Amino acid sequence: MFTGLSAFPLTPMNEQGIQENAFIRSVEHLAGAGVDSIGVLGSTGSYAYLSCKERARIARLSVENAGGVPVILGIGALRTRDVLANAESAQQAGASGVLLAPVSYQNLTDDEVFDLYATVCHSLSVPLCVYDNPGTTHFTFSDELHGRIAHLPQVRSIKIPPVVSDIDVARERIVRLRMLIPSDVTIGISGDPAAATGLNAGCDAWYSVIGGLYPQAALALTRAAQAGDVQQAEALSVALEPIWALYREYGGSLRVAATIAEVTGKVSQPCLPQPLKTLQGNDRKRVAQVVEQLGLAFEVKS
Amino acid sequence: MFTGLSAFPLTPMNEQGIQENAFIRSVEHLAGAGVDSIGVLGSTGSYAYLSCKERARIARLSVENAGGVPVILGIGALRTRDVLANAESAQQAGASGVLLAPVSYQNLTDDEVFDLYATVCHSLSVPLCVYDNPGTTHFTFSDELHGRIAHLPQVRSIKIPPVVSDIDVARERIVRLRMLIPSDVTIGISGDPAAATGLNAGCDAWYSVIGGLYPQAALALTRAAQAGDVQQAEALSVALEPIWALYREYGGSLRVAATIAEVTGKVSQPCLPQPLKTLQGNDRKRVAQVVEQLGLAFEVKS
Repeated sequence: MFTGLSAFPLTPMNEQGIQENAFIRSVEHLAGAGVDSIGVLGSTGSYAYLSCKERARIARLSVENAGGVPVILGIGALRTRDVLANAESAQQAGASGVLLAPVSYQNLTDDEVFDLYATVCHSLSVPLCVYDNPGTTHFTFSDELHGRIAHLPQVRSIKIPPVVSDIDVARERIVRLRMLIPSDVTIGISGDPAAATGLNAGCDAWYSVIGGLYPQAALALTRAAQAGDVQQAEALSVALEPIWALYREYGGSLRVAATIAEVTGKVSQPCLPQPLKTLQGNDRKRVAQVVEQLGLAFEVKS
Repeated sequence: MFTGLSAFPLTPMNEQGIQENAFIRSVEHLAGAGVDSIGVLGSTGSYAYLSCKERARIARLSVENAGGVPVILGIGALRTRDVLANAESAQQAGASGVLLAPVSYQNLTDDEVFDLYATVCHSLSVPLCVYDNPGTTHFTFSDELHGRIAHLPQVRSIKIPPVVSDIDVARERIVRLRMLIPSDVTIGISGDPAAATGLNAGCDAWYSVIGGLYPQAALALTRAAQAGDVQQAEALSVALEPIWALYREYGGSLRVAATIAEVTGKVSQPCLPQPLKTLQGNDRKRVAQVVEQLGLAFEVKS
């Protein structure tokens, strides 16, 4: 399950609640496209902004509408108590796996993070993916800590931040991490612009934001890399460079993905929880132009 | 209200709930000591780890037991919806003011932060203190943004991060900020080790962690600075240097303050929400030694 393309849909919402119909449509779209798994309530799914109760509801809706495609549910929260509640609701909903980031307000120590994973793994009956995302959690894993956590029961994957663009350096980084973790723990790349390099450098999975909107484009890149066609994977990433440029310009993937979903009519506007906002004015027009230019508007309606 | 010593108590808790009796005792202790205000549910009060319902309960308990001393309640949350709910419960409880930090998971833009404050101020009938704490929120205010926000209705104070130790540089920093904000908006220093320099450099208030445990020591320092006795304020800070050294060594004030509260019997162990932990082993012994050495154990029992 923690291999190939894991597509991360948005959880569209406004101040009144979750746009459930739009969410269900996106889950159905991803399942129909044949992604390897659906990563619900990741950072792209705005998990940190929802209550435990709302997350339990999203868990049920996603598994019910995924048509048997494995659903991986984000269970991270500031407090261990809430992480355990989210783990319980994810399992009750029928999640195939869970994704856990060490979310912080006060900075966390290595021992605190290890004990968080140990506590959660102790109560878990489905596999877990360690979510390493220093940009949002402000916690930096050492390789040594990854090694300790990867040996806990239930841990089966690590979602790593972007690798550098030099493929040889990226490959060394994956090999170094691989030496510290059990052989049944996969490594998945995140940060869409680094996906082709990451897969070509030996990552087993792509935890993908753009795959949550355009699964066919992300699948083509993933399958090329899986077939060993390094150049084709790289070429398909280069073709998406206008999207990656938007990510760089607008401080990450979430606001860009959410704006694309709004301008293509996949969700109602607004779709992000306040205080977050999608792009407006000229920034929004630029996003619409990129979608048009790449001919992505068609896939989104399929 | 946003002047002098604002003392920030812990909110002692464990995985079963809040240690309400210990919390009430600490509020009574602060009120009895004559602090100028009590800053409940600040970072020291672990606000980010509690539900809106728990925060409403703490709001009521604090005002009911503060004996008329103004209570400032932290209302920050990742989501504007929850901030508004916390503001409402704080006002219903009878808070004299509120404290709002731009808590983030996804990085926030200046416009998002401004709109957060504008939305909250619009619905508020008590004064607000802007809580600038980049170490926990990972949002950095520009002076220009401080100026814009300080002109919103209800904004009456800014809680700034530590100033540098050079008093002239600190004074320049305060003067520069003061020029951008209305004259009825006070500036309060946080980061206990910088308190004496901050007050001596012209800050109106000290938002104090150690004051939540040892109000007499913090009041003495504050009153010296308010009386213009720069050297006495500095000397009282130097006397507390062993505490500041613990803050530096253990990544901030929270774990040190919580460990002090545990070793002096003010709270039951554990008192922090998991995954956070107080100091253990030799680190804990060092904290106990510092408390003993400074003769602070007496004040805590009063």
